[in-house]
Amino acid sequence: MNRHLMLNETEQSFFQNELKAISGKVEQCLDSWLPTLQSQHGDRVLECMRYSTFAGGKRLRPALVLAASRLGRYEGEGAYWVGSAMEMIHTYSLMQDDLPSLDNDDLRRGRPTAHKQYDEATAILASDGLQTGAYELLTCERVHKDPLVRLEIIRLFARSSGAIGMVLGQMVDMQWEWDKPTNLRVDDLARMNYLKTGMNITACCEAGVVLAAAAHEPNHDLRLRMVRFGDAIGRAFQVYDDVLDVVGTAEVLGKTPGKDAKAGKTTFVSLLGLEGAQKRAVEECERALAEIQDFGPEAELLRLIARYCVTRDK
Amino acid sequence: MNRHLMLNETEQSFFQNELKAISGKVEQCLDSWLPTLQSQHGDRVLECMRYSTFAGGKRLRPALVLAASRLGRYEGEGAYWVGSAMEMIHTYSLMQDDLPSLDNDDLRRGRPTAHKQYDEATAILASDGLQTGAYELLTCERVHKDPLVRLEIIRLFARSSGAIGMVLGQMVDMQWEWDKPTNLRVDDLARMNYLKTGMNITACCEAGVVLAAAAHEPNHDLRLRMVRFGDAIGRAFQVYDDVLDVVGTAEVLGKTPGKDAKAGKTTFVSLLGLEGAQKRAVEECERALAEIQDFGPEAELLRLIARYCVTRDK
Repeated sequence: MNRHLMLNETEQSFFQNELKAISGKVEQCLDSWLPTLQSQHGDRVLECMRYSTFAGGKRLRPALVLAASRLGRYEGEGAYWVGSAMEMIHTYSLMQDDLPSLDNDDLRRGRPTAHKQYDEATAILASDGLQTGAYELLTCERVHKDPLVRLEIIRLFARSSGAIGMVLGQMVDMQWEWDKPTNLRVDDLARMNYLKTGMNITACCEAGVVLAAAAHEPNHDLRLRMVRFGDAIGRAFQVYDDVLDVVGTAEVLGKTPGKDAKAGKTTFVSLLGLEGAQKRAVEECERALAEIQDFGPEAELLRLIARYCVTRDK
Repeated sequence: MNRHLMLNETEQSFFQNELKAISGKVEQCLDSWLPTLQSQHGDRVLECMRYSTFAGGKRLRPALVLAASRLGRYEGEGAYWVGSAMEMIHTYSLMQDDLPSLDNDDLRRGRPTAHKQYDEATAILASDGLQTGAYELLTCERVHKDPLVRLEIIRLFARSSGAIGMVLGQMVDMQWEWDKPTNLRVDDLARMNYLKTGMNITACCEAGVVLAAAAHEPNHDLRLRMVRFGDAIGRAFQVYDDVLDVVGTAEVLGKTPGKDAKAGKTTFVSLLGLEGAQKRAVEECERALAEIQDFGPEAELLRLIARYCVTRDK
């Protein structure tokens, strides 16, 4: 039922090339920003920061910043720096998520998690270094010449990953893990996912628009569109994640499918059924596409990202 | 040998009143900034943030921001907000320091540490909420109307608590804990302490001056003075900490003295002897005082803080 959203061969190759170019630029930024080893005591934490940052992620969040900035005809390099800052925040959150006292995962993307490769203390300190480093990076003039734009992006990212954003979402997720509530509804799941990942995804879309508009002449209409677009693809992504956990193959996913069902976890599939969840993911994707239907080729990358969210195989 | 630096009765009462007034204002700021409970799932992390923030600290860092800002004749409310942001960063670092994989402490200021009162996952998430919340707070106009001033303070705090600051200092400290090197020199100790706490103390002094000067007309001379002042009292404080561990009484310290010596830890006292360490602390304090000797009563609070660092009994 998501067939009409699948990327054809031309689109697929355009999309892959774009992602590759963006991730190449972002990795250059990250490499130049992260502290280099000092060949003395303490290097361990700097090593761990690099180990976790360069772990083969898709850099989807930076791609969103860049794609959204195109809607405002933005062409500067700042989008790569903003995308890099969000990757550092995203990486710190994954490192902590993997810790023994949280999800207790030994592997991520086929490699030992940070606390397995190093140790727990180093992983925690390195995650702090990444988080703090993201905010320091966002103060730099290379991000945008207008200081109000830099401040606005710091505020966006801090809010979406803070105590009423990602941190709260993680807490709710942990508490469900501990309490195993049986009466969760679709709205509860959607709220938790919005806090845990959706707000950061939306913040990337907003940041792109903020970069493009002059601070004293903000484009409120475009920003609202991007908020609604970001919310919709965030939901689409999460619902489709639950679908993949059922229909995906271990080989492609790189992890055992059916893990959630086996653990008795409430998911969009357990609440809506497989077909219902697929339908919902597609609806959210179409809602996102509707927000940008009036745009031309400058919105193409955003469209492909939205369609990718509900047609990917992992 | 530090007798001439002791606070007399009048000074003592002025100092205590100042600290009390500052800490009262800062706690109002913190109370209004920290998220209030939402009476739903996830409140645990918000509760833990408040539990750790309101634990009876002296709020010495905010006092430094305020005292430094007075040298530039600054009289706004922003210093309290900046001080509050640094308290949130300081609190997050103490919470993590106490974690089982780091110092593994059950008690802080006579109360269960965050992970003992709640649990490890909650303590980690709450520390993130505090760190992120500090940067979000610093973006607000109430801090200072000039956006460049806000950005400069974010950069100062992020740098001093980041991967080439506090995070690195923590890592070095941990590695010494693990490796127990026997060849550490005074300079090694001083560097580790500078990274772990000194940079943040200096950042507070600088932030006060940054608040006071217009961004387009910075007072470089005053700022340099404050950097040297902050470095000196940071060193004085740390050296005197090691002295107190030897001469302090359990009753006043609120913890067992002689812990470092028993653990065979290298300290300023083990390297310089008790008298040598006392002398060094006094010299650093006098170096700090020399930096502000040309000022009048507007520097009085800074002077008292410097003298307090090497005459306190806990």
